[in-house]
Amino acid sequence: MKRISILGATGSIGRNTVEVIGGHPDKFRVVGLAAKNNISLLESQIRRFRPEVVAVYDEAAAERLRKKDLHVEICSGEEGLVRAATLNNADLVVSAIVGSPGLVPTYEAIRAGKDIALATKEALVMAGGLVMAEAARRGVRVLPVDSEHSAIFQCLNGRDMKEVEKIVLTASGGPFYRKHISEFEAITPEDALRHPTWDMGRKISIDSATLMNKGLEVIEACWLFDLPPEKVEVVLHPQSIIHSMVKFIDGCVIAHMSVPDMKGPISYALSWPGRFDAVLPALDLAAVGELTFLAPDTKKYPSLLLAYDAIRTGGTMPCVLNAANEVAVEAFLDRRISFTDIPRVISKTMSGHKVLKSDSIDTVINASNRAREQAREIIESQESRVKS
Amino acid sequence: MKRISILGATGSIGRNTVEVIGGHPDKFRVVGLAAKNNISLLESQIRRFRPEVVAVYDEAAAERLRKKDLHVEICSGEEGLVRAATLNNADLVVSAIVGSPGLVPTYEAIRAGKDIALATKEALVMAGGLVMAEAARRGVRVLPVDSEHSAIFQCLNGRDMKEVEKIVLTASGGPFYRKHISEFEAITPEDALRHPTWDMGRKISIDSATLMNKGLEVIEACWLFDLPPEKVEVVLHPQSIIHSMVKFIDGCVIAHMSVPDMKGPISYALSWPGRFDAVLPALDLAAVGELTFLAPDTKKYPSLLLAYDAIRTGGTMPCVLNAANEVAVEAFLDRRISFTDIPRVISKTMSGHKVLKSDSIDTVINASNRAREQAREIIESQESRVKS
Repeated sequence: MKRISILGATGSIGRNTVEVIGGHPDKFRVVGLAAKNNISLLESQIRRFRPEVVAVYDEAAAERLRKKDLHVEICSGEEGLVRAATLNNADLVVSAIVGSPGLVPTYEAIRAGKDIALATKEALVMAGGLVMAEAARRGVRVLPVDSEHSAIFQCLNGRDMKEVEKIVLTASGGPFYRKHISEFEAITPEDALRHPTWDMGRKISIDSATLMNKGLEVIEACWLFDLPPEKVEVVLHPQSIIHSMVKFIDGCVIAHMSVPDMKGPISYALSWPGRFDAVLPALDLAAVGELTFLAPDTKKYPSLLLAYDAIRTGGTMPCVLNAANEVAVEAFLDRRISFTDIPRVISKTMSGHKVLKSDSIDTVINASNRAREQAREIIESQESRVKS
Repeated sequence: MKRISILGATGSIGRNTVEVIGGHPDKFRVVGLAAKNNISLLESQIRRFRPEVVAVYDEAAAERLRKKDLHVEICSGEEGLVRAATLNNADLVVSAIVGSPGLVPTYEAIRAGKDIALATKEALVMAGGLVMAEAARRGVRVLPVDSEHSAIFQCLNGRDMKEVEKIVLTASGGPFYRKHISEFEAITPEDALRHPTWDMGRKISIDSATLMNKGLEVIEACWLFDLPPEKVEVVLHPQSIIHSMVKFIDGCVIAHMSVPDMKGPISYALSWPGRFDAVLPALDLAAVGELTFLAPDTKKYPSLLLAYDAIRTGGTMPCVLNAANEVAVEAFLDRRISFTDIPRVISKTMSGHKVLKSDSIDTVINASNRAREQAREIIESQESRVKS
């Protein structure tokens, strides 16, 4: 019986995790649940799994949930998330909080010796060096939940990394890979939220449309598999059937495929080193017919280059990239900036940043907060320019 | 230093093996070479590698080679092949004799405790049960050299077979997968020898055009990976980039890819469990553009169904399938029967066969010889019908 705490239980990954776990009551017990503010869904999860501790990030929502009298400890704020992440009773923490708020709980879970099923790529993008060093020190397994990294993990299957030439992350290309670059300026949030192959949250859908999602995944992959950025390639593959590949020194390539469904990688992180039965429908390639591939057009997707720049620069730069992107995506969803402004805001924020060594979580968080402010200022100054 | 004996040294696989070995003089020493009758090529291989024993199947050719005074033991006939296969000094035997003459030397190499790099699929098609049981008994490794089986072997990478749902062998479909069935009758040997993606010998090129090659590979895979035929699927994939796949119980698929070049699987069998550097050019999927897949049309390719029938029936039936196919392909290359007669001859030969348990190599060889006679009779009776 594996005892699990789920951080981000009401999000897209969290809900899928709950579904997978619910199918294997003999194998898992949910001991902790944490969410931002969706207490109605959280309530039904509490009634179903009877965890020991529940954390609600939003204080007011936590207070409302406490009034429901659910006979469970309900904590709140970042402190609450950390409590759910470090439960004595948990063996594995599913880290699925969207964005930078996921960093500290994930880091604390590792410090508490919990194995991690990692969906919150920001933990590695912001503080990969610290997180992986801590995991190594505590003998903690960081199991990837992102479909690409799960694919790489499954392709590697314990092989000698000296035999690995490169890894190749596939990208669906989002909804716009066929659009001409001249049409990018006019892309609306509604256009960008319509992802062709994956059903995801809003932030990740936009990141997928800008290819920043792939950029963040490149950074995540560098940390997760201990590879320099020049060994991590990206290829567009609109059908999202091949989830990623490993190229070996002899020219052979091992690829991982399945129908695109996040239940696949989530299940694997939970079942590892085994596999569950019939998680996904069988892949019928003859029915799929064709798999296509194209090189990413970096003129259309400058965010991908910015991510490579950030990881090559190192230190606090990837953290700044991520922070500026979070702010820019929010502004785009609020219709304050255009689709093509997103990489512009990130690039300007990065240019203004003086890189520090990421030697503590505080350094990282300070850099992130400062970058958020700067990104906001860049957006505001642009708005005032537009108005005037 | 691995000491190697190459059976079928002057054939397509043998020549590639020699090339790979020649690139790693620090890792390999060629102690034995065996060929059918191409003594001019064999002579240059002898001068290059200075083996201890050379076998020439053809007695007259052996005699001519002996006159060259090459300061090497030259033996001949099947006895000679067996001598080269069982050399005291050999660690690994590359079994690459085309067709049924490869069975006995391969079997004897295993009995002598030699690890096998297996290209001669007939050894498993004819006598898979005997060969694999003997390999298990002697602790002998049978390393696949066929690109499909090497791909499966690399995808499995030691994984638990209980997690394997199915394996999927890819087939290029040969030169005719787009041709309408009504045009199949008129296919000439020249048409059939023009293979689009793989450079192979004549017999295998025809087998590839009829899909019998895939049928034989299905049988080979059943023995090599200890799977029932219903767990071995075939999908057409004209680009020959994905060499085969493993489907796992959870719906995940691991696939092996590379540019199509036999040096890949040959190198892997020799370098296993490691890999050699830069064997094949890097695979650039964006340059390839698309990979396509279609279900094999069994009306166009009845040979594939015959192979499934044969392995399901078991006993001596796969051996009979193989023998009849060898005779039919020869007759087709000699323009004595048409392309569509090939499966007809095989089917008739199989119908006339009373299945025996394959409990000894003699039983198998007798069944094979008898089937060859019957196939010849079927062809002759057809010819006399056509003439009259």
